[in-house]
Amino acid sequence: MSELKNDRFLRALLRQPVDMTPVWMMRQAGRYLPEYRATRAKAGSFLDLCKNPELACEVTLQPLERFPLDAAILFSDILTIPDAMGLGLYFGEGEGPKFERPVRDRAAVEALGVPDPEQELRYVMDAVRTIRRELNGRVPLIGFSGSPWTLATYMVEGGSTKNFALAKGMMFDSPDLMHALLGKLADSVTAYLNAQIAAGAQAVMLFDTWGGALTTSDYKAFSLDYMQRIVAGLTREADGRRVPVILFTKGGSQWLEMMADTGCDALGLDWTIDIGVARARVGDRVALQGNLDPCTLYASPEAIRRAVGGILASYGEGSGHVFNLGHGIHPEIPPEHAGAMVEAVHELSRKYHPA
Amino acid sequence: MSELKNDRFLRALLRQPVDMTPVWMMRQAGRYLPEYRATRAKAGSFLDLCKNPELACEVTLQPLERFPLDAAILFSDILTIPDAMGLGLYFGEGEGPKFERPVRDRAAVEALGVPDPEQELRYVMDAVRTIRRELNGRVPLIGFSGSPWTLATYMVEGGSTKNFALAKGMMFDSPDLMHALLGKLADSVTAYLNAQIAAGAQAVMLFDTWGGALTTSDYKAFSLDYMQRIVAGLTREADGRRVPVILFTKGGSQWLEMMADTGCDALGLDWTIDIGVARARVGDRVALQGNLDPCTLYASPEAIRRAVGGILASYGEGSGHVFNLGHGIHPEIPPEHAGAMVEAVHELSRKYHPA
Repeated sequence: MSELKNDRFLRALLRQPVDMTPVWMMRQAGRYLPEYRATRAKAGSFLDLCKNPELACEVTLQPLERFPLDAAILFSDILTIPDAMGLGLYFGEGEGPKFERPVRDRAAVEALGVPDPEQELRYVMDAVRTIRRELNGRVPLIGFSGSPWTLATYMVEGGSTKNFALAKGMMFDSPDLMHALLGKLADSVTAYLNAQIAAGAQAVMLFDTWGGALTTSDYKAFSLDYMQRIVAGLTREADGRRVPVILFTKGGSQWLEMMADTGCDALGLDWTIDIGVARARVGDRVALQGNLDPCTLYASPEAIRRAVGGILASYGEGSGHVFNLGHGIHPEIPPEHAGAMVEAVHELSRKYHPA
Repeated sequence: MSELKNDRFLRALLRQPVDMTPVWMMRQAGRYLPEYRATRAKAGSFLDLCKNPELACEVTLQPLERFPLDAAILFSDILTIPDAMGLGLYFGEGEGPKFERPVRDRAAVEALGVPDPEQELRYVMDAVRTIRRELNGRVPLIGFSGSPWTLATYMVEGGSTKNFALAKGMMFDSPDLMHALLGKLADSVTAYLNAQIAAGAQAVMLFDTWGGALTTSDYKAFSLDYMQRIVAGLTREADGRRVPVILFTKGGSQWLEMMADTGCDALGLDWTIDIGVARARVGDRVALQGNLDPCTLYASPEAIRRAVGGILASYGEGSGHVFNLGHGIHPEIPPEHAGAMVEAVHELSRKYHPA
């Protein structure tokens, strides 16, 4: 493997000194970029794009050509695991993800296997290998997975949901069944992320998109405990470097202390929490990633720059901060607004990292 | 006015001793009740129902006939104020609320007047008077309004929104304009709630449905400060009793201390926070209302009872707790599940209120 030329991102996740705050954006390879839309059109469907390692690599690298980002993230979908389990993932025109065969009873849960990442999910591993080769040490590559709870909600509901009626119904009425499903998912996610690390991912992130819809005690029992189990099962070193693990629960600001206790290296923050408050709460146990309101990018470059400055000032001096949005970039954002954010982070953060 | 026969709800909001924990449900007059659907069909549209004081009274009282609830809440919509400002509220078939004339520039904001509640919103005041008369002292009547920020999001977007692109765009790029809009809304809400109190409302609640979509500093500047201004302008006594004010920001758990400092009497809690943790944080400054996950009502009566018991135990001994859902009841809930919740609250809470 070629030597890493920019390791700011990995160093910040481990709270080691950096020259400026590293930055990347959730969904940085996405619809707000015309070049992404062109590749997507060439690929066919969104799922065709995910399953084509060459094109997935192409879109992964696109934002790096435009902006001096400090990390690349594998282009993929969080629902690859349930798809590999045989649920039949598809996307209707203008609709969210759907499953042909949702999981709603004991027989369906028992029938689920743990996918072999180098078999059923080989297209993802091929994408990781291709991207890592094409990056050629420019910046680190982030691998990722959905959290067990988040995957379970889609699998039980059969798609997106507003109320989580079926998933929560199973959780309340048949907690054992939900635990059986989550256990299989935790095993699958562990194997999947370890395979991504073996294929070349240099950091991994767990996206718990729907943990924030739970009560505190249900969050612990049905989401956090399974993420902790995954963290404990991950390969934490590759190429002689530590592979940091980032945990992100959208809407999970009130649970940061519990999350920091899982053994992860960093927490993703949504935009609702003041990052200085978050830093005071977790101390030096973990690094923090975030947390600009993605809607800030609708505003003018001047307003974006002010907001970036506010977050950097709130975090304050020293390493341990990876700048990001608090959620994925919206499709309507003008690319130059994203560029203004990246530039502002690098420029305004130098003073917080004195030599 | 006839004497109040059950004042458990008002006493709990003021942290005065009660025999058992009072309970009501957000959206208790609603689509989960077949009798509501019948009245609604008779009325025509949802808006026709809101604007007909006799029928609004009918649906307000329906849940009280089924369940021994400790409060009634005015049946109305949060968007009556912008409608009275001339924005043209309508509901498309199967769609959320929409405005014919959204507010997107300075001219539109400047053109807005503060509605006279006994003129443009007289139908609401007539409903309050009718309900209060028909209640005949059975339980207290709650009046309510949307918060300025929440109303502003609908007014700027022209309806519901996922990303708040336009409302946040105005907030970031033209904060003065957003403040001008919020100032007019704060004046309107103050007049509206004071008129409801004059017409017979015995407690009032501010619904800040979308405050939780803001960063901490934007929440304070664009939502909380305006709610505080409203609280300061409200009539706090009627019929020789204090009129308690409840503040509810969905997704606002991390800001409870700030909210408690507004001078309100109680905070509504969504279901994500442990109510015992919330109580420890706000101390004896305010009462708490909440906070069962509304999805719990999809589960069996046994599971509902367990969950109710957990919340009562977490709050612990003493007054200052009004039991409620953490958000409105979902339309698919079987009414007997709501009944199981109400029964469990009364039965299981007695031991926390020793004489």
